[in-house]
Amino acid sequence: MDIHELIKSLREPGEGKIVLLVSDGIGGLPMKPGGLTELETAKTPNLDALAKIGVQGLSVPILPGITPGSGPGHLGLFGYDPLKFIIGRGALEAAGIGFQMQENDVAIRCNFCTTDAKGNITDRRAGRIPSDESAKVVGKLKAIKIDGVEIFVEPVKEHRFVVVFRGAGLGDAVADTDPQRTGVPVLDPVARNEASKKTAEIAKEFHRQAVKILASETKANNHTMRGFAKKPHMPSYEELYGLKAACIAVYPMYKGLASFAGMTLVGKSATLTEEIDTLEKAWNDYDFFFVHFKYTDSRGEDGNFDEKVKMIEELDKVIPRIQALNPACFIVTGDHSTPAKMASHSFHPVPTLIVSDLARTDAAEHYGERDAAAGGLGHFEAQYLMPLAMAHAGRLGKFGA
Amino acid sequence: MDIHELIKSLREPGEGKIVLLVSDGIGGLPMKPGGLTELETAKTPNLDALAKIGVQGLSVPILPGITPGSGPGHLGLFGYDPLKFIIGRGALEAAGIGFQMQENDVAIRCNFCTTDAKGNITDRRAGRIPSDESAKVVGKLKAIKIDGVEIFVEPVKEHRFVVVFRGAGLGDAVADTDPQRTGVPVLDPVARNEASKKTAEIAKEFHRQAVKILASETKANNHTMRGFAKKPHMPSYEELYGLKAACIAVYPMYKGLASFAGMTLVGKSATLTEEIDTLEKAWNDYDFFFVHFKYTDSRGEDGNFDEKVKMIEELDKVIPRIQALNPACFIVTGDHSTPAKMASHSFHPVPTLIVSDLARTDAAEHYGERDAAAGGLGHFEAQYLMPLAMAHAGRLGKFGA
Repeated sequence: MDIHELIKSLREPGEGKIVLLVSDGIGGLPMKPGGLTELETAKTPNLDALAKIGVQGLSVPILPGITPGSGPGHLGLFGYDPLKFIIGRGALEAAGIGFQMQENDVAIRCNFCTTDAKGNITDRRAGRIPSDESAKVVGKLKAIKIDGVEIFVEPVKEHRFVVVFRGAGLGDAVADTDPQRTGVPVLDPVARNEASKKTAEIAKEFHRQAVKILASETKANNHTMRGFAKKPHMPSYEELYGLKAACIAVYPMYKGLASFAGMTLVGKSATLTEEIDTLEKAWNDYDFFFVHFKYTDSRGEDGNFDEKVKMIEELDKVIPRIQALNPACFIVTGDHSTPAKMASHSFHPVPTLIVSDLARTDAAEHYGERDAAAGGLGHFEAQYLMPLAMAHAGRLGKFGA
Repeated sequence: MDIHELIKSLREPGEGKIVLLVSDGIGGLPMKPGGLTELETAKTPNLDALAKIGVQGLSVPILPGITPGSGPGHLGLFGYDPLKFIIGRGALEAAGIGFQMQENDVAIRCNFCTTDAKGNITDRRAGRIPSDESAKVVGKLKAIKIDGVEIFVEPVKEHRFVVVFRGAGLGDAVADTDPQRTGVPVLDPVARNEASKKTAEIAKEFHRQAVKILASETKANNHTMRGFAKKPHMPSYEELYGLKAACIAVYPMYKGLASFAGMTLVGKSATLTEEIDTLEKAWNDYDFFFVHFKYTDSRGEDGNFDEKVKMIEELDKVIPRIQALNPACFIVTGDHSTPAKMASHSFHPVPTLIVSDLARTDAAEHYGERDAAAGGLGHFEAQYLMPLAMAHAGRLGKFGA
C-alpha cells in the first residue's frame, strides 16, 4: 500500500486547521565552515518561542544530496513523491506565469530564435530580446487560428513564451523542435505515440502560421517548441486528505504549483503582510493554508547573506499573527535551501518546525539548522510532511487493530 | 533483494542471545507542549545506566504520522514490513483470545445481533450483552456440526465471538455478512473467488444452524460474520533469522502475534516479575526472547499520566535482572506510543535503546524521547530493528567482499 492509499484509508474528518508556511530557500550555510547560517544569525524571537514548544527536524526535499527546483521542492512539501509526480516543463512554465491549465491542455515552452534566408538558425534565443519587445511579438501570434483547438499564447520573459493547445485528444508525447544548435533549421514536431499525432499536426500548423507572421521581424523571426506537457496527474488535496486547501502566494509559479494540487488561490497579495491579511480573512473558509514567502530565496539567490538574514527577521515578525489564529498544526519550513554562499538552490535539508498541541517537544531552543538536525522529527523525506501535518492536526485514524 | 532475503543470506550461527523487551505504548507526550513526557518524568536509574553505555534512537512504527494498532506495531518490531504483512481481522481476533491458528484455518469475527420477526436487524450488537451472558450463548453454538470441517466457536467480549473453520481447501476471500445498518437482513456469505466457495458454503450452513439454536434468545437471536482471514503468511523466526524464539507475555493478543512469527509461547505469567522468572528459567533454551509488558499502554489508554509514570518505574526495577543474564543484545522499546494526554495509541516514534558490547555509545544520559531523538540509532523504521538486533548480537556476516 502506498502512502497516498494509506492516508486516504485513515483520514478522519476534523476541525483542526493546518498552516504550511513555506519560506522559500530558508535553509542556508555559514559563509565559512564553523560559522552560523543565515537562520542561525537572524534574530527570531517569535520563531524561537515556537521552537521551545514545538518539534523540529530536517526535511530532505528529494533524496540526500539532490538539489530540487521549485517544482519538485514544492511537490514534496505538498505530499507528492517528487520522483514519481513529474511536472512537464511546459506545464511548469505555464504554472510560472499563472496560467491555469485544464485537463484537455497541452502546454509548450517556446523560444523565439533567429533564422537566416535559408531557414537555418543563427541565434537560438533571438538575441535575448527584451521582455517588453518580446511581449509585443507574442501579441501578434495570438492571431493564429487552427480548427478544432483553442490556442493561448502568453509571454514569459525575454525570448521565452508559452503556447497552450486546448482540445480533446491531445497527447503530449511530442519531440522538441529545438535542434539545440545553430546552422540547421527548426525541427518538425514529431509525435512519439499515436495519441499525440494530433498535437504534432497542430504544432506544425501553429509554427507554419507563426513563421508567416514573424517574417518581418529582424530578431524574433522564428521559434522553437520544447517540453510539450499536459497538466500533471495528481490526486487533489480534497481527494487525498479531505482538506479544503487554500494557496496564499505572491508569485504566479507557486500559485500554479498549488493549483496542480487542487488548492484554491485566495486573495491578491503583493507583500507578506497582505498575505497574512488574506490568511486572516479566509480563516473560516478552508482547512489548509499554504502560505508562500519568496524573499528568503531571492536574497539567497542574490548571494546576499545579510539581506537574507533581514528577510528571515521580516518573516519572524508575522509569526504571532499566524499563531493568534490558533492553528491545530502550524508548520514553518522551506521547499529547499538557498545558501547565500552558493547563490543558488542547494541540496541541504531544510529546518522544519511543527507547532501543535500534539507536538512532542524536543530539546531545541531556537528554530535553525543545528537544532533541527538533533530534533524530534529527525531527518525525513519532505513527502512525509503532509502525513505528519494530518497527524498533528488530529485528522488521521489508526492503522490496523 | 529485500531485507528478508538479505538477512537470510548473511546470518551466521552465534551464541549471543537477544532480549526484545517491549513496553507497550511506552512513548508519550508532555501534558503541555514544552513539558516532560511520562518516560522523561519517571525515575529510571537502571534504564538511565543502560542509556549511558548503550545507543538510542526513535523507531517509526509504520511511516511518519501513522498510528499503528497492536498488530502492525508488533509486526514491525518483529521485523516484518507492516504495510506488506497484513493480519486479517479474523486472524487478529483469534490471536487476541489466544487461539493458535493452523495453516488450514479460516477465522471469522462474529457479532451477535438482534433481528425482528421478518429477519431484519434491529440491533447490530445485540444490546452489547454482557460477556458472561454472551459466553453462555456461544457455548450453545459449539453444537454446530458440518461435514468435512472442524469448527471452533470462542467468546471474545460482550456481543463478539470468534468462529474458526479448520479443513482443506478453505480460502478466505468471503465478503462480510454484516450489512452495516439496521432494518435489513443479515447478508449471505459470498465468495469473492473460486478458492473461497467452500468457505462461503460452510459459513452459510453455520449461520443456518446458528439461527435455529438462537431462536429462543431475546437479544442474541442472530449473528453476523466479518473479516474472514487465514493465518498470515509470514516466514518464521527460525526461517528468517535462524533463531529459536520465545514469547513471554501475559496477554493473549501478544502471544497470538508472536505465534504468527513462529515463536514458542513460554511459561504462564500473570505479572512482570513472573515474566522475568520465566525468562530466567528459559534462558538456556532459546536464542531470542520477546518479553511483553502491557501496563504502560493500559495506563496511557486510561489517560493517567502519573500511573503510566509508575508503570515505567515498575519496569525499571526488573532491568537489572535481565541485564544480569548478560544478553548479547538487550533492546528496550515499545510497539508504539500511547501518550496519557491522548489516551490512545499515537503516531509519535518510540524511544528505543540497544545495549550490547557492540553498541556505539551516544551522548544520551537518560532513556527517553529527547535523548532518543538525538541518539546514535537515528530515526528508523521499526522493521529494521531486527537486523540491528542480529548485528548487535554478532549474528550477521558481511555483505559482499
